[in-house]
Amino acid sequence: MISNRALNMPASPIRRLVPFADEAKKRGIQVYHLNIGQPDIETPKEWFEYIEKFKTKVVAYTHSQGILPLREKFSEYYKKWDINVSPDEIMVTNGGSEAIMFALGIVCDPGDEILVIEPFYANYAGFAAYLNIKIIPVTTTPENGYRMPEKKEFEKRISSKTKAILFSNPSNPTGVVYTKEELQTIVEIAKKYNLVIISDEVYREFAFDNKKSISAFEFEEIHDRLIIVDSISKRYSACGARIGTFVTKNKKFYNAALKFAQARLSPAEITQYGTIGLLNSSEEYMKNTLTEYQKRRDVAYEEIKKIPSVVAYKPEGAFYLSAKLPVDNAEEFIKWMLTNFNVDGKTTMVAPLSGFYATPNTGLSEIRIAYVLNSEKIKDAIKIMALAIEKFNNQKKLVGESKVD
Amino acid sequence: MISNRALNMPASPIRRLVPFADEAKKRGIQVYHLNIGQPDIETPKEWFEYIEKFKTKVVAYTHSQGILPLREKFSEYYKKWDINVSPDEIMVTNGGSEAIMFALGIVCDPGDEILVIEPFYANYAGFAAYLNIKIIPVTTTPENGYRMPEKKEFEKRISSKTKAILFSNPSNPTGVVYTKEELQTIVEIAKKYNLVIISDEVYREFAFDNKKSISAFEFEEIHDRLIIVDSISKRYSACGARIGTFVTKNKKFYNAALKFAQARLSPAEITQYGTIGLLNSSEEYMKNTLTEYQKRRDVAYEEIKKIPSVVAYKPEGAFYLSAKLPVDNAEEFIKWMLTNFNVDGKTTMVAPLSGFYATPNTGLSEIRIAYVLNSEKIKDAIKIMALAIEKFNNQKKLVGESKVD
Repeated sequence: MISNRALNMPASPIRRLVPFADEAKKRGIQVYHLNIGQPDIETPKEWFEYIEKFKTKVVAYTHSQGILPLREKFSEYYKKWDINVSPDEIMVTNGGSEAIMFALGIVCDPGDEILVIEPFYANYAGFAAYLNIKIIPVTTTPENGYRMPEKKEFEKRISSKTKAILFSNPSNPTGVVYTKEELQTIVEIAKKYNLVIISDEVYREFAFDNKKSISAFEFEEIHDRLIIVDSISKRYSACGARIGTFVTKNKKFYNAALKFAQARLSPAEITQYGTIGLLNSSEEYMKNTLTEYQKRRDVAYEEIKKIPSVVAYKPEGAFYLSAKLPVDNAEEFIKWMLTNFNVDGKTTMVAPLSGFYATPNTGLSEIRIAYVLNSEKIKDAIKIMALAIEKFNNQKKLVGESKVD
Repeated sequence: MISNRALNMPASPIRRLVPFADEAKKRGIQVYHLNIGQPDIETPKEWFEYIEKFKTKVVAYTHSQGILPLREKFSEYYKKWDINVSPDEIMVTNGGSEAIMFALGIVCDPGDEILVIEPFYANYAGFAAYLNIKIIPVTTTPENGYRMPEKKEFEKRISSKTKAILFSNPSNPTGVVYTKEELQTIVEIAKKYNLVIISDEVYREFAFDNKKSISAFEFEEIHDRLIIVDSISKRYSACGARIGTFVTKNKKFYNAALKFAQARLSPAEITQYGTIGLLNSSEEYMKNTLTEYQKRRDVAYEEIKKIPSVVAYKPEGAFYLSAKLPVDNAEEFIKWMLTNFNVDGKTTMVAPLSGFYATPNTGLSEIRIAYVLNSEKIKDAIKIMALAIEKFNNQKKLVGESKVD
């Protein structure tokens, strides 16, 4: 009685090891959670102020595309990033998740294909499975710093069923921030092969070393084929608000998304008012947040580089660091850290990166670190992981040797 | 660049006439909105109290299946209705909408079919289109009081692709509350043909004249094939909370839904805490709400029966009344009421029922009235509609006669 759609749905690589962490905690072990993108930074006080300020007698549906004052506020916000979109080109969604689902549904029928730069945000695979869309991965490698693949790598994967290119920039999970030249690759391919570009820009604010992340919107020539999916979750540390946006200048895309939006009626009411508060928060808040993440990035990178034989580049944005560890199977290693290892009652949890690849048996030695804890904890967590790698490999070596005997 | 999925997506029959209402308002006309199920009843004060009471520093993701205290509270709530489900058999969703989408996704692959008793909640068609599922309508008629069709009507529509039966009880849009015998029909068919039952019970509380609405859960023999989709929107007048539930005792269904839920991360945080407040609201509140809707039902029914040649039965539940009007095309008539008619600056908007049928050219003369305004307004609104019908038909007659000349 269960569909193949459901059976083929991948379990979240971020959440599937959680039971082992829960077990560890039951044994009294403290677990450093670097596995999930849930920041510890405080949400701007304006969220709470606007929630409190909002008074109503009846908790009512809003317009399906979101309340106008919020869409106006988003329009102002985007203008600051040189993304000139009117309130009618912005739709408020249940998190970035729903914006992605709308975008995929608009562009693809069952059996259609989308090119996705891998490793990619793992839930893309879930949304694609739900809608029976095939992800065609275009692979990047840790050795190459997970940079944008060459044009020919995209081209050789294009078929008559290819409808779009989906990617995140700054990238989750790699922390890469694409240059204008790199984005140009995607722009050219989209134009040449008549593809839609779905640009996930939820980490827009988090580009380090005074760089600015470049929106796909900067390429005016693709405005008719561009959908930006976005979310306030990360930038304002408000993941639990579940407010995202679907942004496009293509009226047909917008009207199609509106039909999807009308079917599910509306986003929550009070969280939309809270989000107006977020968009009214200070530039100081964002500056401090960026400074904090950059500091953590530095610490994380410094510590991980100390591990012998690790392959890691310094992330330029988002709040993730992907790296190749000197272990054969990172998922097994992470499970082992949770079940068999601790240093003074503490251990570390990171995400296995294989679940962020669509190509089978890829990224097996790689992990993603989300630097969502303070620098001191990150330092401690990675030091623990370094000791764990050593012990894990020694043990494996011993087991291996004893087998040879 | 747009999918057939999006092109085939129906526009909401409830919302597509809204531009004409907006135009009327711009001309200074007061519009009685009986078209949409947005109640005017005040939300329980506990919602606001719990929202205010909830304090946090970081607005965070919750568990994908919803926070445990809320699921525990729902479990208690369901026990009062003799629906014995544990917190692990309840998933919190973004409104009933998402619960339906999860249920459909779990049960059907693209091209699969579901039997739906029509007229049905119009957005079922939207969700089915989004997931490429085919709705096979089993038709009821105003003349028959929209009662449950006979067994053979279901049976003759079953194919190898049929996976489930979906219906709402109490029914939106008809206000029918099915008897145990009527539900037995569905139970027998589901068992005989190995179908899943998706029972939409969001109007559970609203059964009039001291009747009790019967949950599909009362049939123990189908627990392994039952998914209840539910929502707090209507019963607590909290549509803007966007909190629903997906309830099943089938572990495989639950785990499949959990994978979908994990992909979209979590429902909003603060609205879940607010909903704990709703579930702690008084029985008095619910009793008063029911009394109020029953009073309105009485007024609406009394008024509509005064219209010559109308076909209407007294609704037993929900807060809708469906009726067949003596007009050829109700959608055209409603549009005309908004554009060409008013009584002392007032006019009435109802929903055309044809959009609630999947069978083409069905229900053309029928409408749905949502009694979401107070009795006085409902009375006035239906009186206005009665005058409108007379004038509309007279005009058509004149135009018809002049055409004959």
